[in-house]
Amino acid sequence: MNIEEMEKYLRKLIDSKDLLTLQEEVSKLNEADLAEILEEFDDRETLLVFRMLPKDLSIDVFSHMTSSQQKKLVASMTDKELDAIIKELYFDDRIDFLEEMPASLVTRIIGNAPAEERKLINQFLQYPEYSAGSIMTIEYVALSPDMTVKKALEYIKEVGMSKETIYTCYVKDKYQKLLGFVSLRELVISDENLIVEDIMLEDVVFAETLDDQEEVADKFVKYGYLALPVVDKEHRLCGIITFDDVMDVIEEEATEDFHRMAAIEPSVSSYIDESPWNLAKHRIPWLLILMISATFTGGIINKYNWIITDFLILTNFIPMITDTGGNTGSQSSTMVIRGLATGDIELDDMFPVIFKEVKIGFIVGSTLAFVNFLRLIFLAQAPLPIAFVVTLTVIVTVILSNLMGAFLPIIVKKLGADPALMAGSVITTIVDSLVLIIYFGLAGLLLYRF
Amino acid sequence: MNIEEMEKYLRKLIDSKDLLTLQEEVSKLNEADLAEILEEFDDRETLLVFRMLPKDLSIDVFSHMTSSQQKKLVASMTDKELDAIIKELYFDDRIDFLEEMPASLVTRIIGNAPAEERKLINQFLQYPEYSAGSIMTIEYVALSPDMTVKKALEYIKEVGMSKETIYTCYVKDKYQKLLGFVSLRELVISDENLIVEDIMLEDVVFAETLDDQEEVADKFVKYGYLALPVVDKEHRLCGIITFDDVMDVIEEEATEDFHRMAAIEPSVSSYIDESPWNLAKHRIPWLLILMISATFTGGIINKYNWIITDFLILTNFIPMITDTGGNTGSQSSTMVIRGLATGDIELDDMFPVIFKEVKIGFIVGSTLAFVNFLRLIFLAQAPLPIAFVVTLTVIVTVILSNLMGAFLPIIVKKLGADPALMAGSVITTIVDSLVLIIYFGLAGLLLYRF
Repeated sequence: MNIEEMEKYLRKLIDSKDLLTLQEEVSKLNEADLAEILEEFDDRETLLVFRMLPKDLSIDVFSHMTSSQQKKLVASMTDKELDAIIKELYFDDRIDFLEEMPASLVTRIIGNAPAEERKLINQFLQYPEYSAGSIMTIEYVALSPDMTVKKALEYIKEVGMSKETIYTCYVKDKYQKLLGFVSLRELVISDENLIVEDIMLEDVVFAETLDDQEEVADKFVKYGYLALPVVDKEHRLCGIITFDDVMDVIEEEATEDFHRMAAIEPSVSSYIDESPWNLAKHRIPWLLILMISATFTGGIINKYNWIITDFLILTNFIPMITDTGGNTGSQSSTMVIRGLATGDIELDDMFPVIFKEVKIGFIVGSTLAFVNFLRLIFLAQAPLPIAFVVTLTVIVTVILSNLMGAFLPIIVKKLGADPALMAGSVITTIVDSLVLIIYFGLAGLLLYRF
Repeated sequence: MNIEEMEKYLRKLIDSKDLLTLQEEVSKLNEADLAEILEEFDDRETLLVFRMLPKDLSIDVFSHMTSSQQKKLVASMTDKELDAIIKELYFDDRIDFLEEMPASLVTRIIGNAPAEERKLINQFLQYPEYSAGSIMTIEYVALSPDMTVKKALEYIKEVGMSKETIYTCYVKDKYQKLLGFVSLRELVISDENLIVEDIMLEDVVFAETLDDQEEVADKFVKYGYLALPVVDKEHRLCGIITFDDVMDVIEEEATEDFHRMAAIEPSVSSYIDESPWNLAKHRIPWLLILMISATFTGGIINKYNWIITDFLILTNFIPMITDTGGNTGSQSSTMVIRGLATGDIELDDMFPVIFKEVKIGFIVGSTLAFVNFLRLIFLAQAPLPIAFVVTLTVIVTVILSNLMGAFLPIIVKKLGADPALMAGSVITTIVDSLVLIIYFGLAGLLLYRF
């Protein structure tokens, strides 16, 4: 049964009040699937299903829910039920949950926690959004360097159930400083009388608490590790980040770039959950800037009205020329922005990249101009001088747009801002003005001579 | 020392011919770092460093290299050196390598392999690009259901070194059918006299060999697993996919969407390695289509030349209006395309999403139109009827562009194609014509009455 079928089946069981079968069926489901199914259920149904789950499963389902699902569920729970769940969540899931909840609820929950835990929660809540600290967890296995392999394995067996991963264990000294790591694989295949210090790897790749989560994701992609330790300025081990959380980060960061490249201020929440007002708020600022900028483009047309009056046909080609400039500029800026994001292109590559884009612009521009020339002469039967001006403009436009599309993102990155700002709409607006100046400039220069 | 400093330092050692220190230093480096450093070295230097690495490290470095690096290195190696490396690579890395090499080399390498392996390599090389089969590996731990935990652990200890992961072990019957899985964590914390069958989980999430790699990635993100088993049509276990390969897939798939949304035909190879000709080839097709389409837009202007002759000022606002239409259309289509890709938006959400975009369009459009009206009246001192036509056009444009930006990607996905095709440039071109018809339509309707 796939997820949609299962959803319909469960709903039928609810409607027919067959709660025994319902309980049996939901208890067999995978936690991620169940969380997904519950998204389609209303508050009353969700609570009904949630209450009949075995405890362990209910915790797992809860941590797989979206924060808006959690919010709704929590609103209809008793305080006792909520506390029981909070207590059992992995530490990082608990922090994620608290970050999304209203302040009054957070205060109550933190108030109920033991003193030491309260301090830790407060500390974690203070890590800036998108920092390594904000996505790390404290449930890791810590070994001391002088343990034997046998002792280490026994220790893992003892505490393993409550740790987020036991596959990479971290070795720290009594001052909490990170000394190295050892994988469970290494422990399992090593002689049990060896000392942890002798088999651990000291060359640890780590993150610092305030590192950006994007840097952390890059390290995971590069090194392929299961988990990364996070240390503070004194190199004390504060927590670890596991690969599953990083997969979410990779998606989130790509989504942020997609949005920014479409001139939308990024937001973390889901499209489906957001109100039209909030979504509009993220779109209006750039649109306003771009709209005002586009009036400059209008100003350029205005300035050349004298040419238009003489050659009215020139206006017909304005959309084609500005669109082609925008399209080619978008292409090259997208290539460069994405290349910078994945590390394929580095800042040092600036001149080779710009040079390459100019060459591409020449190839692409000549091709487009050629096709366009044939169309103008044979299909549109435009006068030769006009066809000549338009064709020349297309070549120059494409080369210039490619150049700007490569140059602007790199420069913006060099200045320390997000290169994704210099994409599609912004590039189009910048290129538009330049392209029209070239178009009318060439027209003014050439058309009055024939 | 960071990577750039290390690169300079190693280069200095090469230049001063201090090969002993060089060997010592490179042997201490992390394989991923070393592969990255070697990218900046020329063929001769790369081979020099590569030859002085301890064997294990050299294999790891090789598998971290880009395929163009591998190609160059292989070209300067002896056959014997190459064979030694190929033999030691993990199976999936070996397949990845062979896929990129010239046919003559592949034939020679396969010819040298033992009969059974040759069959397997040929089978793997035949899985379609981007399929689950093409990214899986055969180095997994397989247990039989009747083993004791103790026996299983001993077995893992014995074969563990040569497996890509030992943290998830797969249980199969004698017909190779997948029965379930058990994590090393479960094995380590379980009583050693229990039977694998009793502790394994039977509810396995799996992929089939021909599944698209994007589906596989979605499963990893959803379930957070370390590895996923891949089965054939008869549910026989063929291989596994590990999380580290999936991280690359997530990046690749996002890159593909970025490129397609900028009207570039996606390609797998790196920007830096590609020739300008090849890059141009991926950009020209859509540009041509868009350029030809833009001539329809020109045709519309042409049709309304009689209005322009009467009210020349109208041409000044064409860029602002078409740009705003393109920008808002890009915003809404980007939100929808990305939402569909991450699963935030589902096909069933079509009507709510379109309705939401219309509401957003109303909010955004009114805001932009209001600002624009003020600017026209007070700054540009445009005649009131003109300001009125432009303002009305902006509102209608934004609502319509949002509607198209939401509608088109969803429809394209419903038809089974990639919704990313309906992004930026394509939406802009479609919206342009509509917007101009509205603009001149409203102008013709209103301006001659005042």
